Amino acid sequence: MRPNRLKHLWQENRTAINAWLTIPSAWTAEVIAHTGYDSLTLDLQHGLADYATALAMLQAISTTDVVPLARVPWNEPAMIMRLLDAGAYGLICPMVNTRAEAEAFVGACRYAPAGYRSYGPTRAVLYAGDDYAAHANAEVLTLAMIETAQALKNVDDIAATPGLDGVYIGPADLGLSLGLPKLADFTNPNLLRALDTILEATAKHNLIPGIHAGTPENAILLAERGFRLVTPATDTALLRAGAEAALTQTRRGVK
Amino acid sequence: MRPNRLKHLWQENRTAINAWLTIPSAWTAEVIAHTGYDSLTLDLQHGLADYATALAMLQAISTTDVVPLARVPWNEPAMIMRLLDAGAYGLICPMVNTRAEAEAFVGACRYAPAGYRSYGPTRAVLYAGDDYAAHANAEVLTLAMIETAQALKNVDDIAATPGLDGVYIGPADLGLSLGLPKLADFTNPNLLRALDTILEATAKHNLIPGIHAGTPENAILLAERGFRLVTPATDTALLRAGAEAALTQTRRGVK
Amino acid sequence: MRPNRLKHLWQENRTAINAWLTIPSAWTAEVIAHTGYDSLTLDLQHGLADYATALAMLQAISTTDVVPLARVPWNEPAMIMRLLDAGAYGLICPMVNTRAEAEAFVGACRYAPAGYRSYGPTRAVLYAGDDYAAHANAEVLTLAMIETAQALKNVDDIAATPGLDGVYIGPADLGLSLGLPKLADFTNPNLLRALDTILEATAKHNLIPGIHAGTPENAILLAERGFRLVTPATDTALLRAGAEAALTQTRRGVK
Amino acid sequence: MRPNRLKHLWQENRTAINAWLTIPSAWTAEVIAHTGYDSLTLDLQHGLADYATALAMLQAISTTDVVPLARVPWNEPAMIMRLLDAGAYGLICPMVNTRAEAEAFVGACRYAPAGYRSYGPTRAVLYAGDDYAAHANAEVLTLAMIETAQALKNVDDIAATPGLDGVYIGPADLGLSLGLPKLADFTNPNLLRALDTILEATAKHNLIPGIHAGTPENAILLAERGFRLVTPATDTALLRAGAEAALTQTRRGVK
Amino acid sequence: MRPNRLKHLWQENRTAINAWLTIPSAWTAEVIAHTGYDSLTLDLQHGLADYATALAMLQAISTTDVVPLARVPWNEPAMIMRLLDAGAYGLICPMVNTRAEAEAFVGACRYAPAGYRSYGPTRAVLYAGDDYAAHANAEVLTLAMIETAQALKNVDDIAATPGLDGVYIGPADLGLSLGLPKLADFTNPNLLRALDTILEATAKHNLIPGIHAGTPENAILLAERGFRLVTPATDTALLRAGAEAALTQTRRGVK
Amino acid sequence: MRPNRLKHLWQENRTAINAWLTIPSAWTAEVIAHTGYDSLTLDLQHGLADYATALAMLQAISTTDVVPLARVPWNEPAMIMRLLDAGAYGLICPMVNTRAEAEAFVGACRYAPAGYRSYGPTRAVLYAGDDYAAHANAEVLTLAMIETAQALKNVDDIAATPGLDGVYIGPADLGLSLGLPKLADFTNPNLLRALDTILEATAKHNLIPGIHAGTPENAILLAERGFRLVTPATDTALLRAGAEAALTQTRRGVK
Repeated sequence: MRPNRLKHLWQENRTAINAWLTIPSAWTAEVIAHTGYDSLTLDLQHGLADYATALAMLQAISTTDVVPLARVPWNEPAMIMRLLDAGAYGLICPMVNTRAEAEAFVGACRYAPAGYRSYGPTRAVLYAGDDYAAHANAEVLTLAMIETAQALKNVDDIAATPGLDGVYIGPADLGLSLGLPKLADFTNPNLLRALDTILEATAKHNLIPGIHAGTPENAILLAERGFRLVTPATDTALLRAGAEAALTQTRRGVK
Repeated sequence: MRPNRLKHLWQENRTAINAWLTIPSAWTAEVIAHTGYDSLTLDLQHGLADYATALAMLQAISTTDVVPLARVPWNEPAMIMRLLDAGAYGLICPMVNTRAEAEAFVGACRYAPAGYRSYGPTRAVLYAGDDYAAHANAEVLTLAMIETAQALKNVDDIAATPGLDGVYIGPADLGLSLGLPKLADFTNPNLLRALDTILEATAKHNLIPGIHAGTPENAILLAERGFRLVTPATDTALLRAGAEAALTQTRRGVK
Repeated sequence: MRPNRLKHLWQENRTAINAWLTIPSAWTAEVIAHTGYDSLTLDLQHGLADYATALAMLQAISTTDVVPLARVPWNEPAMIMRLLDAGAYGLICPMVNTRAEAEAFVGACRYAPAGYRSYGPTRAVLYAGDDYAAHANAEVLTLAMIETAQALKNVDDIAATPGLDGVYIGPADLGLSLGLPKLADFTNPNLLRALDTILEATAKHNLIPGIHAGTPENAILLAERGFRLVTPATDTALLRAGAEAALTQTRRGVK
Repeated sequence: MRPNRLKHLWQENRTAINAWLTIPSAWTAEVIAHTGYDSLTLDLQHGLADYATALAMLQAISTTDVVPLARVPWNEPAMIMRLLDAGAYGLICPMVNTRAEAEAFVGACRYAPAGYRSYGPTRAVLYAGDDYAAHANAEVLTLAMIETAQALKNVDDIAATPGLDGVYIGPADLGLSLGLPKLADFTNPNLLRALDTILEATAKHNLIPGIHAGTPENAILLAERGFRLVTPATDTALLRAGAEAALTQTRRGVK
Repeated sequence: MRPNRLKHLWQENRTAINAWLTIPSAWTAEVIAHTGYDSLTLDLQHGLADYATALAMLQAISTTDVVPLARVPWNEPAMIMRLLDAGAYGLICPMVNTRAEAEAFVGACRYAPAGYRSYGPTRAVLYAGDDYAAHANAEVLTLAMIETAQALKNVDDIAATPGLDGVYIGPADLGLSLGLPKLADFTNPNLLRALDTILEATAKHNLIPGIHAGTPENAILLAERGFRLVTPATDTALLRAGAEAALTQTRRGVK
Repeated sequence: MRPNRLKHLWQENRTAINAWLTIPSAWTAEVIAHTGYDSLTLDLQHGLADYATALAMLQAISTTDVVPLARVPWNEPAMIMRLLDAGAYGLICPMVNTRAEAEAFVGACRYAPAGYRSYGPTRAVLYAGDDYAAHANAEVLTLAMIETAQALKNVDDIAATPGLDGVYIGPADLGLSLGLPKLADFTNPNLLRALDTILEATAKHNLIPGIHAGTPENAILLAERGFRLVTPATDTALLRAGAEAALTQTRRGVK
């Protein structure tokens, strides 16, 4: 089976740099795949792709050796299993607030006896190799999102879930849930305290801590703080910012 | 009929700032439409959208009052008429090398007796109003691309075509055709001389001169030189550059 | 944030006239959006659009100021949140039979602390404005369908759900569940009695009562009875009836 | 090969009633196919479907025995041949103004030695039967549009084209080209005179005369005048009119 | 209502031969529909089609009288009801492990009072006839997948579920769950014993036993063993095997 | 620039084995790409893919190192250039009957001064590398179809076209044009004589001779005869044959 390069990278104690895909387009996915991120995450929750487009995006990403991840829209087995069958090498599950929810998520990603994933890796065998089924439980990443006060309270219990590979923090939702005044404000000490609590839990249970950083600056600071999967860039935001900057600069220069 | 805001803007002697859409996606079109360019051009020649996606992109752009333009893949009446029926308010036609080609292009854009456009503005009446047919010949822009040595030679003849509203320069193809060493090199005196020849022809025939500038810096210089429609930004290039910059910055900061 | 025009209309004590979209097409959505209904509802339950098409339809509707609503296929957070992120200004949830189901539905539509909606209004910020998150809980409508005997029994409890804005009656399912002989027969006294029970509950809890009327005649009678959101028209039915009428008339006239 | 039911109907001296499809949707095509028209015409010129959607629409129509026709966007072999390969049983070609253009059109529809259609009826063999190639030249209809002053002048010459089965009149374009004040005004004596000229040519050359009638009333009058293929209905127009009528009636009845 | 031909075939004590569709394409569905299987099953679990493509595939299959079935991705009412509304004449539900799950599945497929299916058979009425609602509970097939050790233990209880028409065995998942060394190995006595247990339960409760056979050889053996719905062929596997065989044969013959 | 592996293979005097893609699906393209053919040809003439699907198929093929070719629907610059910009590494052009047509085709594939291809290799630079423009004229294959009596007569003249890399024979159309009784009958001496004439012309002008063989048996015989690009397999035919064979075998074995 094609090995999961993120795992290898983490074994070398490096930090994975991930880009976030919300544009429902195989073309933009292919463009970004060629820029050299360690992984790309298809966001099927707040991004605009659905399964059919995600499948096309996974094909486009597979023209490179960038690791394809996906965030599922919710903790439900149907889409979890479909994305894995389509060749995603890791899933990020939103709103995992309890141990039971974490177990349901992980179970949906693992073949028996480790879980209850149904067999039928239709595209995964093309991408990964014909021995996919034998190795998928070991290579496919499961990342639970910690993004509510409840999840924060339960984080140690969640982190102890067998088969869970890491957590991924949604700082906007976590801040909303904690009642913080601004979204994803990494200067807020309450948010930072929450991050440290999560980092401790992941360290204790030997999980990979990941986080939605939003900018390169934040990604660097968060990697220094201990995160091993950081997302400095989202496609829609990059495009909007680039278009606005080009317009502003041009508008200033022409009458 | 909804007036063509580019015409109004030029009557005030201002320069229109245009963005170029090569991503086949209604979502990215809608995002850029909200940033405030004067017009957006759907590129059906070198861009990746086909007619069906272009239709969706025109709908997405129509959520704003940005003027929708399109570049057709070739000087052929089928796609020219279909894009106008879909609500494009102006067309850019590649590789117009002779007066006859210019007349064929303009004729396909104009209802009789000015041309041979077939009647059936299916979506255009929704976008423009039920009186579309009465005013379309006056409001819809026709821009012929001057991008070969042959076209340069014929530019005065082309510019005299009745019903032609402007020209649009493709500097990469023009440079290729002129045998210049680098693509779209605006420091090359031969290219600049060619641009001036074209500017003279458009001034003489009271046409709008437009050009693919590629960057804000070039757009500003070219507007100063006399161009009234400049394109400083292309979606794919913006996205790729943004993704690369975020990655490079992050990579430098994390181990 | 762009205000929800339905709310304004109800504050003036007027009745909203809604059309129902079951054709999976951004084009037909755009056509109907231009006819002037107060709102359009994308039906993702019995209609044929899925999320990707719904997104395109929301873009098409946004070329007008008609309020975009959607009926979700089921009371599940994934699609509820995705449609809100895509810019729907109100959701109709089928088969809400208990207070707990009503709370689950409303919670999925509201950001913390009012609910558990996850943050990421990707398209909604384009449509509504950058201050969307601050006002969405107040502007986005939540309408629970009362369409079973169980729901009818629980209607007062359901109507008391905090954050619920209104109910929407599915008369066909309600009749099926009550064992009535004909579907959506508004002359059946048992159905009318059920409607009155629901109207009382909505009046008591200050909710908007809405109903699937099916025809203009029924919509008028139901508005007189007290409903404030009525649906006299469904796209597929309009098209089928129009095509049949034109054929019948022509067939009679030609040999 | 599945016989062309239009031919049979004309042999019985009946008039075919045709509906016009401009909505790019297999669903609306299937709905209308079930209402019982003799034929449906996919409009790839002013309608919004492109080839991919047309293919899906042809599949949807094939769930009934309604005859599938298509209008091509222009007199070009690529799309002509592709639509025939996809199973269209007849084509309407716009803007056929000369004998040479008529011959080019017919030739693209006929296998050698009658024409230059390339062999490869990929879907047509499923729809029509494995003996398609042997009979296609006889069963597939070729209808040239007469819709300009030039075509009117050349109509006798055009009608004499070997292999041409009929003509189809576009009254809006014909009126535009003749300089008539209103579009498709069947009370205008100049338009009626033109129609009679065309009817004479088709009678002389034993061709089927067809026409875009627009309404059942006009279809009946035109059938009486001699047309054997009449189009009283267009999907977008039916939908728009139906939606407007339902809204107007409801608006009048509710406050 | 169009009768369900599978039911008729079973009444004659014949075995239905089913093909499995995992390619997300209306074209391949139409091709296979024309080859003459008794039924085709759209696999929305491990196959690559989503709802929108499934709808197009159902239309394509409806060009023949082959019975359209679908496997839903999970035991969830949203997709179950949508596929039935789209015209599926039977559903296969994965991972039905308990009587309660079987009841939830069957209930979602049946109108009240037999179940809780919501009324709105948008496409089904076109395919099946306007009396669909009156007969759907009797004609639409419900097949629960028995594919875990837990389901095997509960099979008698599951088989007794009112309204359940049959079971369908997923031998790969069943083998995984039983800890068998090879996937879908029909020579394994433990697997065969499990099949016999299931056959006994279906015989006792007068249900149709179905199974994923994978090859014609296995289909024949399993039909002899007692199965009445066998699947010898999957589209992707057929295509891959055919392409490999043609390549291998050619490669051997050319230098 | 990524080298064209077909060229390398021919330099070693080997024969390329090509598969033909008529199914409009990125999934089936990816499946076949993984089986190991030397090249795959997307058929946009008689196949069912249009440009948008072809783009997705090119992405899917690019997950392997199989060489992507395409057959254009007709000898027209728009689609020729768009497919090259999308990353096709060679084009097959139907119905090239004269030297002028061959020159028009080749010119559309070559940048100035060798031709008139317009610059804008949007996706090609991702697939091939940023130096694509400098090497494309040398790496991109141009194959003219010889498939009419006229082309056969002109074959020496066509083969002498500067920049032409090879010819590709369509035996069905060639047979039709020559008036042969059966399609693609490689036992017909007239057809074989025509093939030899073409082989002589390609040998004389140092072109690659290619042919649509249809079966492995024919591919082997034709390779022995001298063809260097043979197509033994078409996806739709493989799928249909595989489905029919599995059904027939199963039907024989079950009652």
